[in-house]
Amino acid sequence: MMPALERIRVVLCAPSHPGNIGGAARAMQAMGLQRLVLVNPSRFPDAEASALAAGALSILASARVVTTIEAALSGTVLAIGLSARPRQFAGAVMPVRAAAPEALRFAQSGDVALVFGTEMSGLSNAELERCQMVATIPTDPQHCSLNLAAAVQVAAYEIYVAATGGTVWSAPTFKPATQDEIEQLFAHGERTLAGLNFLYPRQPKRLMPRLRRLFARARLEKEEVNILRGILARIDQRLLNAKPAREQ
Amino acid sequence: MMPALERIRVVLCAPSHPGNIGGAARAMQAMGLQRLVLVNPSRFPDAEASALAAGALSILASARVVTTIEAALSGTVLAIGLSARPRQFAGAVMPVRAAAPEALRFAQSGDVALVFGTEMSGLSNAELERCQMVATIPTDPQHCSLNLAAAVQVAAYEIYVAATGGTVWSAPTFKPATQDEIEQLFAHGERTLAGLNFLYPRQPKRLMPRLRRLFARARLEKEEVNILRGILARIDQRLLNAKPAREQ
Repeated sequence: MMPALERIRVVLCAPSHPGNIGGAARAMQAMGLQRLVLVNPSRFPDAEASALAAGALSILASARVVTTIEAALSGTVLAIGLSARPRQFAGAVMPVRAAAPEALRFAQSGDVALVFGTEMSGLSNAELERCQMVATIPTDPQHCSLNLAAAVQVAAYEIYVAATGGTVWSAPTFKPATQDEIEQLFAHGERTLAGLNFLYPRQPKRLMPRLRRLFARARLEKEEVNILRGILARIDQRLLNAKPAREQ
Repeated sequence: MMPALERIRVVLCAPSHPGNIGGAARAMQAMGLQRLVLVNPSRFPDAEASALAAGALSILASARVVTTIEAALSGTVLAIGLSARPRQFAGAVMPVRAAAPEALRFAQSGDVALVFGTEMSGLSNAELERCQMVATIPTDPQHCSLNLAAAVQVAAYEIYVAATGGTVWSAPTFKPATQDEIEQLFAHGERTLAGLNFLYPRQPKRLMPRLRRLFARARLEKEEVNILRGILARIDQRLLNAKPAREQ
């Protein structure tokens, strides 16, 4: 795990549904976060929280339960409140994508909290006042209600992408064809299409350029060039064996 | 709603938990997506789906239920599979953040599908083969299990941010102080600090530059300058009234 991610804690203020605590833990684990703090949860521990945590039981087991927001933020150098409507907040308000690098910057020198409010009404003004920054998840203004675990998921995702660059582990790699191989393919194809009387060398129109465009977009691999040349060779062979069909 | 978002459908292949269907619908609605297609859901409609959809019941009500992936993708010009481990996939694999603008680009000319696999095992190879592109949500490689509704949330969020620029509606705005007001504040502060014998004009050290740095970071507002000058004036007044204290 990256050291900066170890310094980021997720604080849930008065979560009322244990399922959301479990969902938040699972979201955190997928994004490399480990430290969960619960301020006055309605029910915890709880079987539903454990069920929705799936493989993230260790996060639930090590979760801290406290009774005040102050205790939850103790030891942090930055607290970022997640809020959809921080109208009362006088500090910096930014989209969560912009807040994520800030969280990581402060995590270089100390603990950072991501603070989430209760399901029904979000963060209270008193809780917001404890935050130095507010991060907002952009949503359709007509429907700005995110589920609590879903909000934790998006925020944790942004932190993880900011920390890691969001690289996906390497895609299956294939050997790209060389330009020489591709040119030989086109030369072969042109001969075969002429043999098929589909291309008329004296009136070629735009056929070859169109085919070039198609295969350029596809970024041919060596193996694919071999397959295509195999198909062309088979057509050539059939044309040789077939009786010459002047008409038709 | 933006026209491009109207052309994006979310396809859930064989979802086994109705709660995830509801969670997906809620995630979609918050991000401006409306069109849900279910391929062979275990249970639908279902009370749990409706409960977790919260305000997104209209998405459930208009969801299409089909029996094949082909039917789900009918009419699309691009299908993007969401997969954590597309080892068998020979096409373009990219992080979901890079895939989102591609989805919107194709949505200019037709319908686009975001295709999600079943909870336990994700997309099958047969389903992946129907996709022209695979999008991956970056996760901690040791814990790459995202809940289905959480994966829909992250993908829909990336689409929404790509479509809208991710601007958050305007923060509460306050009148910033002018440079003149700020310079008058510093001049006043310097006099008062000297009066307090905290600043020695002949040996000022780095006190004023440090204070300037602090207040520069804070981006002072008019109202705040007024408050600070009020505090300084009160200190000045007390110093005048107080007996001169040469020694402590």
